[in-house]
Amino acid sequence: MPKTDLWFTELQNEDLTIGLRVAKTIHSEETPYQQLDVYETNQYGRLLVLDGCVMTTDKDEFVYHEMLAHVPLHTHPNPENVLVVGGGDGGIIREVVKHPSVKRAVLAEIDGAVVEASKKYFPHIASGLNDPRVDVQIVDGIKYVEEHANTFDVILVDSTDPVGPAVGLFSKTFYESVFDALKADGLFAAQTESPFVNQNLIRRVYGDINKTFPITELYLAHIPTYPTGMWSFTMGSKTHRPEAVKEVRVSDTKYYNLGVHHAALALPNFVKELVQK
Amino acid sequence: MPKTDLWFTELQNEDLTIGLRVAKTIHSEETPYQQLDVYETNQYGRLLVLDGCVMTTDKDEFVYHEMLAHVPLHTHPNPENVLVVGGGDGGIIREVVKHPSVKRAVLAEIDGAVVEASKKYFPHIASGLNDPRVDVQIVDGIKYVEEHANTFDVILVDSTDPVGPAVGLFSKTFYESVFDALKADGLFAAQTESPFVNQNLIRRVYGDINKTFPITELYLAHIPTYPTGMWSFTMGSKTHRPEAVKEVRVSDTKYYNLGVHHAALALPNFVKELVQK
Repeated sequence: MPKTDLWFTELQNEDLTIGLRVAKTIHSEETPYQQLDVYETNQYGRLLVLDGCVMTTDKDEFVYHEMLAHVPLHTHPNPENVLVVGGGDGGIIREVVKHPSVKRAVLAEIDGAVVEASKKYFPHIASGLNDPRVDVQIVDGIKYVEEHANTFDVILVDSTDPVGPAVGLFSKTFYESVFDALKADGLFAAQTESPFVNQNLIRRVYGDINKTFPITELYLAHIPTYPTGMWSFTMGSKTHRPEAVKEVRVSDTKYYNLGVHHAALALPNFVKELVQK
Repeated sequence: MPKTDLWFTELQNEDLTIGLRVAKTIHSEETPYQQLDVYETNQYGRLLVLDGCVMTTDKDEFVYHEMLAHVPLHTHPNPENVLVVGGGDGGIIREVVKHPSVKRAVLAEIDGAVVEASKKYFPHIASGLNDPRVDVQIVDGIKYVEEHANTFDVILVDSTDPVGPAVGLFSKTFYESVFDALKADGLFAAQTESPFVNQNLIRRVYGDINKTFPITELYLAHIPTYPTGMWSFTMGSKTHRPEAVKEVRVSDTKYYNLGVHHAALALPNFVKELVQK
């Protein structure tokens, strides 16, 4: 028998929890922006927690990172300049640099402590940060986007939940800045929570993106450690459509493939209703 | 503030829990086969629990019931005689009788208390049990299948987890009996747990079905109240392929549609590896 019975429990909302047995507390700090904890769990390996919310785990991180990166990157015919807003753990960047077309990938993360913790405790997630094409900027992503008009082919918004520091990343004003920061055929995607428990947010965000971009698409993935396990991403695009993708340019993926790309866009009826498709 | 702080917590395995805030305990009994509890939860409405495991909830039951029923039923060109093994809550039967081709639907449930509790506490799930085409048999499903050779077009196995009374429903011997109970172009599907946490089970079950049936297909759905939220079903078929489905015959569904039918069959790489596709 283990000598301690330690559990990490996330109150996903006031009525719903996920609990993970903790083998060991690895790290704990209060950064200037948030509480950052790292645990070793039996179920999912190492777990990164920000302000009490699961950010990523060793065992299921590949789903979120591959799906937020590869669906939009494949939708663009030739992504050269890519911006990741948030995503300090480096998981999205790791997937971005798998694309040979990418010449420059900027990470705009507000909290340098997340980058440092990831390099130290999640080296396989942070691995892409050392790629010579990557430019890590410890800055306010909202400001960075405002200051870089007509610069990027693809922007990926890897934010925490829409409370605290990330609220601004779920606003119509931000989506308009993103539109301006994209080139004439640019596109972006953001993580947009669960269709089972964040229906009002999805309705509003999808509507705001739809007012800003000619093409808006919601897509889905299975992420066990996020509330309900059904997670949505929303893409806003100026000209390219994700349905048009015919081939996959990366091979070393554990979740993403051409079938999954198109399957992610096939929405259950109750999700279609949310976004009025 | 509520006067009590009551939670239902399922130990999904020894390292993983889901917790649901309980507004009220509705019912609790020890049947001859298992412990049966009904709670009112804030997040998912009423919750049916057997031996401590979430069976179904008001708010997400539609996913499991639609996906276990409609993917195989649409794969068969003309399902007339259908058998549901387990499924005492009636949710699968409710979906089966939406198909106009169905002439007879047998429910073979071992525990009559589940049927009674569902009729009383989940009337919208049990509603199909009153359909004149439905024949509810309180019997051992394994024995029932053995005694009805060459009888059914489609068999749906709606079992609890592969512990306790349901163990036999995950055995090669049972799949062979199912094969014999199906007509010459019959097919069956069973719930087969989560690819994130039940990998050995899926490998074994898929292999056993694959040895028994010419066509074997695993497919996926998002079920928030089951471990990891990513759930698998496995279909064994004598002649018909789910990929061939071109139209949907039912309209009043909240999850299933033609796009979802095909999307469910598109497996992420790590799931393909499990079943060596």
